[in-house]
Amino acid sequence: MHIDIQFLPSPPPHLLSDRVVVVMDILRATSVIVHALSQGASEIIPLATVEEAFQMARAFPRGFVILGGERNSKEIPGFDLGNSPREYAAERVKGKKLILTTTNGTKAFHAVSSGKEILAGSFFNIGAVARRCVESNRDIFIFPSGDKGNFSLEDTVCGGMLIDLITKKEKKQISLTDASYGAQILYQRFKDNLLEAFHLSHHGKELIDRGFEDDLAYCAQIDVTPLVPIFRERVIRVE
Amino acid sequence: MHIDIQFLPSPPPHLLSDRVVVVMDILRATSVIVHALSQGASEIIPLATVEEAFQMARAFPRGFVILGGERNSKEIPGFDLGNSPREYAAERVKGKKLILTTTNGTKAFHAVSSGKEILAGSFFNIGAVARRCVESNRDIFIFPSGDKGNFSLEDTVCGGMLIDLITKKEKKQISLTDASYGAQILYQRFKDNLLEAFHLSHHGKELIDRGFEDDLAYCAQIDVTPLVPIFRERVIRVE
Repeated sequence: MHIDIQFLPSPPPHLLSDRVVVVMDILRATSVIVHALSQGASEIIPLATVEEAFQMARAFPRGFVILGGERNSKEIPGFDLGNSPREYAAERVKGKKLILTTTNGTKAFHAVSSGKEILAGSFFNIGAVARRCVESNRDIFIFPSGDKGNFSLEDTVCGGMLIDLITKKEKKQISLTDASYGAQILYQRFKDNLLEAFHLSHHGKELIDRGFEDDLAYCAQIDVTPLVPIFRERVIRVE
Repeated sequence: MHIDIQFLPSPPPHLLSDRVVVVMDILRATSVIVHALSQGASEIIPLATVEEAFQMARAFPRGFVILGGERNSKEIPGFDLGNSPREYAAERVKGKKLILTTTNGTKAFHAVSSGKEILAGSFFNIGAVARRCVESNRDIFIFPSGDKGNFSLEDTVCGGMLIDLITKKEKKQISLTDASYGAQILYQRFKDNLLEAFHLSHHGKELIDRGFEDDLAYCAQIDVTPLVPIFRERVIRVE
């Protein structure tokens, strides 16, 4: 098994084909996605722009869909919910279709759409994602969705944790790229205090400045759900 | 002072303008450049292609220039020297103009040519480069030239050492990007054994396979020269 992680804004297709691709946007899109599905949302449609989200919402009866997301960590006027996973409780999302658009994470799914199987990863479901990767018997490509095209510390640390878990579970020989070694080392540096990484990170500081400090601790929770969301035909669902 | 490091194959110009840019290709282009100048080479012309190198060499009397470099860690037929810094001893290079073309490093200088001042960094001259960065009073952009567009562990570790040195020397407040924190942590992981990073890295393994294992230990030598090569008007010189 070969495990790669890349810090490019849009990975070239030859790095994705036939691979399991794991998208990570810890603060906060993939944390929202995993949490909303664990709270009973029926499916999630990740979209790149606010305009697309409004347009998609109009195609469904009001009450059937929820519009969620953010731009530059701020709420979007006219949307039902922001991008704080804590907002996506069962009483709000159960049975609903969530249309989600965020600054980095929702675009990331489309950037890797040529992958064989595309998963949403976060600390919430990291153990389950690792199991799925090992069972897939495929090479793995981890895509930290980053911070406006820049390297994101928290996404890379989560990617490093996934690499660490897979290398412990997988019995076959594993080859790691330089970036995979790097991510694993960064995870090992912060594994006893993930919040320290969140507080160092540019995006973590931005969220604190905007009043979302509680989201940092919330998103640092490990293995709270066994769900592995899959992005297929432009929709994210749990199979 | 702001310090950034990026793992992109070609950094966007807005990240370079008005900044001191430090190019690093530890295995082995910038190690060769620093070493050849320390051994008395008069100047170095880094070129992207073998064809350009032959063409440039024809413009000078034979004996006045040296053609050096590699492709995929292999010697180039018709060239005088390869890409092993140990070949660039004073008796071979003193007073000569070196025309150099390598797989990653020589292209990197052209990729960052819009920087305010472009330096060649390596472990050989890391302390001198750090002093120059601090004295510049400018923001710093570190460019690990990578391994065919991929993240390179050894270049990033060297970038992390530069960040570590600057943050210890600089008295003004320093802001680090997420990638800068990441590189500094990777350096701290390997600082007592740089060779361990070289042995993990894809390019380090490739060099060992091709018979250049001795170059790894050679390129891991720290602060053997105070020279800071500068790339200006397509030529690398020491001022």
